[in-house]
Parts: sequence; C-alpha cells; structure tokens
Amino acid sequence: MIAKTPETPYYAVIFSNIRTDVDEGYSEMAEAMIELASQQKGYLGHESVRDGLGVTISYWESLEDIRNWKKHQDHVLAQNYGREKWYSAYKTRICLVERDYGFGL
Amino acid sequence: MIAKTPETPYYAVIFSNIRTDVDEGYSEMAEAMIELASQQKGYLGHESVRDGLGVTISYWESLEDIRNWKKHQDHVLAQNYGREKWYSAYKTRICLVERDYGFGL
Repeated sequence: MIAKTPETPYYAVIFSNIRTDVDEGYSEMAEAMIELASQQKGYLGHESVRDGLGVTISYWESLEDIRNWKKHQDHVLAQNYGREKWYSAYKTRICLVERDYGFGL
Repeated sequence: MIAKTPETPYYAVIFSNIRTDVDEGYSEMAEAMIELASQQKGYLGHESVRDGLGVTISYWESLEDIRNWKKHQDHVLAQNYGREKWYSAYKTRICLVERDYGFGL
C-alpha cells in the first residue's frame, strides 16, 4: 500500500480533496482513473487514503508525464465532473521528490 | 482540513506509514508531535489521513526547517518509538512543491 518508487529524483502529485455528499458514479470513476493512470507512460505508483479529508498521491517520472495525464481525454472528463459534482474543494500540488528514505519496506 | 499554504515554491514532507497493532501512547504522541511541529520555524501546515494506510503531509518553508524539525529532541524520541513499536513500515519523501492550484478553497 506504500508505493514502491525508484531512486530519487521523481515527481509526486498530491491531490487533497473534500467530497460533496453526491455519489453519482464517483467510486466507479475514481477506480477507473486509478486504473487508467497506472497505464500511462511514466506512472510509478500511487497512495490513496480517505477519512473525511481525501489524499491521493500519484508518482511520476517527469513533469511531461504529469502534463500528459492531466490532459488525457477521459481524465479531463473526470476533472470536470469532479468540480461539478463530487468535490466541494481540492488542492493539487506538483512536487519534485528530492530525497526519500524508509523502514520495513 | 486542506492546508492553506503560501505561493510556491515551498516544501512538503510526505510520511506514508503502516501501523503495528501496538498502541502504547501512539495517539498521544501523534497529537503532541503535530502540536510541536506547528510551533517550529518554517512550519506552514499539515494534512493527515488514516484508513489502513496512513499519510501525513507537513509543509515547510525550507529544507533547513525540515532538517531542524527532524533532529528536534522530542521528535527524535518519537521517531525511535515509531520504529520500535508503532510502525511496521514507513516511507518519508522530501519534496519541493513547484506548482499548485485548487478549487473551492
């Protein structure tokens, strides 16, 4: 469940979000987007947790891979639904992972 | 609950973790560490979620602020307990937040 990422540097996209109480296909779309993301060039893994606040972090090889995923046709549709129906607020942060270390992995 | 961070660039520390089933003061220490972190120089905010996988992200002004917090005496004690008792695995990622954008904030 902790993403197995390669040696630094690589990129992380932190998507922090608050849901509305509207479901209307949310779970299916969230699952489909994770499946689709994992098929994109440069995808390295993801971690996703929700407990009131939702945090999904996806890891990528390059900024170009992140840009391509952001403008993927199906993902654009999901982003539009997200703003219209599913999220009351979100913040997306594009990050360069400069260093990492772990324990028990 | 979504951290209010300043304009980029700033830093993020992503702490992804799996708990053991040992409690022994875990919740009190987690709360104390968030309280103590928020008093440190350069602290900008945090987001914390657990649902099996735990993800805590803290935001900082600089790498130096992150280094100082990592070696704070009480935090070092908490890190040692963490490895000995509370976490079966974790990964810490030090990230430069290059760009961010949001909705509904």
